[in-house]
Amino acid sequence: MMLETTIAAIRPADEAAMAAARELHGRLTKPAGSLGALEELSVRLAGLAGACPPPLPEPAAVAIFAGDHGVHAQGVSPWPQEVTAQMIGNFLAGGAVVNAFARQAGASVTVVDVGVATPLPTDPAVADAAGLDPAVLDPAVPRLVVASVRRGTRDLAVTAALTRDEALAAVQTGIRIADELIDAGAGILLTGDMGIGNTTPAAALIAAFTGVDALDATGRGTGVDDPTYAHKVAVVRAALARHIPDPTDPLGVLAAVGGLEHAALAGLILGAAARRTPVLLDGVIAVSAALAAAAFAPDAVSAMVAGHRSAEPGATVALRHLGLDPLIDLGLRLGEGTGALLALPVVTGAVRVLHEVATFDSAGVAEK
Amino acid sequence: MMLETTIAAIRPADEAAMAAARELHGRLTKPAGSLGALEELSVRLAGLAGACPPPLPEPAAVAIFAGDHGVHAQGVSPWPQEVTAQMIGNFLAGGAVVNAFARQAGASVTVVDVGVATPLPTDPAVADAAGLDPAVLDPAVPRLVVASVRRGTRDLAVTAALTRDEALAAVQTGIRIADELIDAGAGILLTGDMGIGNTTPAAALIAAFTGVDALDATGRGTGVDDPTYAHKVAVVRAALARHIPDPTDPLGVLAAVGGLEHAALAGLILGAAARRTPVLLDGVIAVSAALAAAAFAPDAVSAMVAGHRSAEPGATVALRHLGLDPLIDLGLRLGEGTGALLALPVVTGAVRVLHEVATFDSAGVAEK
Repeated sequence: MMLETTIAAIRPADEAAMAAARELHGRLTKPAGSLGALEELSVRLAGLAGACPPPLPEPAAVAIFAGDHGVHAQGVSPWPQEVTAQMIGNFLAGGAVVNAFARQAGASVTVVDVGVATPLPTDPAVADAAGLDPAVLDPAVPRLVVASVRRGTRDLAVTAALTRDEALAAVQTGIRIADELIDAGAGILLTGDMGIGNTTPAAALIAAFTGVDALDATGRGTGVDDPTYAHKVAVVRAALARHIPDPTDPLGVLAAVGGLEHAALAGLILGAAARRTPVLLDGVIAVSAALAAAAFAPDAVSAMVAGHRSAEPGATVALRHLGLDPLIDLGLRLGEGTGALLALPVVTGAVRVLHEVATFDSAGVAEK
Repeated sequence: MMLETTIAAIRPADEAAMAAARELHGRLTKPAGSLGALEELSVRLAGLAGACPPPLPEPAAVAIFAGDHGVHAQGVSPWPQEVTAQMIGNFLAGGAVVNAFARQAGASVTVVDVGVATPLPTDPAVADAAGLDPAVLDPAVPRLVVASVRRGTRDLAVTAALTRDEALAAVQTGIRIADELIDAGAGILLTGDMGIGNTTPAAALIAAFTGVDALDATGRGTGVDDPTYAHKVAVVRAALARHIPDPTDPLGVLAAVGGLEHAALAGLILGAAARRTPVLLDGVIAVSAALAAAAFAPDAVSAMVAGHRSAEPGATVALRHLGLDPLIDLGLRLGEGTGALLALPVVTGAVRVLHEVATFDSAGVAEK
């Protein structure tokens, strides 16, 4: 079973490589510790790779998982559900913010329909369900993979959002995409998401895995008004009371209150961790999925880098639970992978220092 | 007089361009406000350029001003003074962190000796005092400009660090470098600095311009121990008591308690503002110089973008005084321009959104 094999392949960080990175930092031409959080980040990535220096995280590949949500019927979002499919069209045309940031960063964009409810505004001929092709990592050509498990989840306010088999299928799609991108040469994966209404299941996942109250896990998403926000909190609270999700059973939690893109992102993270490849997390959808991945395999946290602190309060709850400090904190709440892409140069820079900076000895610079 | 001409050329932000940028943000395919601080940043840059969208801030040019400090004799730094000159050798050889980050960002590096005390470990033939040449903005070739005002400042603990004429010469060197880089095509300038002991004059400048106590303006620089830190605070406090610098006379403040690289950076900022070109500030040395620039010309703040929040406490005091929020906050305290370079992709991304992202209308995406 692919999920079990993947989980079994996830190993703890390599302490020797981490020690070597710390020692190297002490010899580089800069005051000790003067690169702040970048130093520990580079040490973590050495531990993940089992090598010092770890490989430069290049090329970068964004995977945007898209799905729809039965809970949309509860009025938790002001946007029509069709926007999920319309935004996939925008991604494939290169017109979204994620495309602009990916072009700047030289990252490829793979859009995965893992459960969109309405028809995609795109020629099915462009859909690639067959796996590898030479353009997989071409930053100039966004790619669509159709791997729909079902046309949107059921309404978690009235029943389980997914069966366990459906949740598993989405997780395994995420693992498959991670493998495919890494096989094509990707040195780092970035999480992206699209799904009108998907901050509601994210809030439920965060409350289920961390134990915080629905109020602390729920935010305003794309910007709901006060009455809609209060209703959204009540929907999350009622769903938790109805399903009583067990945080030690991550597949059960994903099935009861998750989304197909959340489940697929959990799989992407597990797949990256199994391949000892860093995965740069975007916002609240990503970190809710990361909680599921950590529940499947605690050592998967070694592969996670928190790109940014989303404005959604649940993101901060999840990051604290995972023990991750975000690299960027600029009040973003867009999703798509945009926050991860903004943080990518920080990750690359942290690793680059270990590759390229001269030592005191080699540069003929005196020490204090 | 070049300084007066430059100050006279600095104009307020263009409100119409800012309004146009805000209006455009409302039509792009993303929830309103979902790019957080990037939206207001792009609006500010539209106001600076007087155009919506403002030009992409490309290519980027880092200017590292290097100088030494008479106050080094007071034992405020554990590093030997020769390290300033040795690090210039490292910059020109491409071995420093600033070089690694500049290569990654595609930014050119110009090192300006504005007052180094000890001989440079470099062939004088590479020094370029003649101004423009085709390699000015070549990211692969760090360039040295020798524009030494004097071989280090006097000891501000016992006398004025500089005469007013010396401070003015350094400010005008900064203006000249800004003009030269912008004439060569630079779309954004990044501040860099190198000078063993230079956090002591930075602390004195911050206390002088903002009125905070020496203790709140002074940090541990490259990492001094407790007794040295207490001594450093006492040196700053005594210098302020001795010179009683007048914050409405920025040239007088720079002369009394500043450094040659601080004065030159103030000039670079003024020069960029006069050309309506953004200047991305690095750490505590940069923001202390920015206070001087703002004292010369309050509208110069429109050209300033705060790259990061240095670990030095005085940096936060200065940023608050300037009304600037930093883009990155990762505990860096290296200088050289490294924090500004890490923030550069955020600035470019903020502007790129206004150039490249589709509108709801053009992309056929429904609004809420």
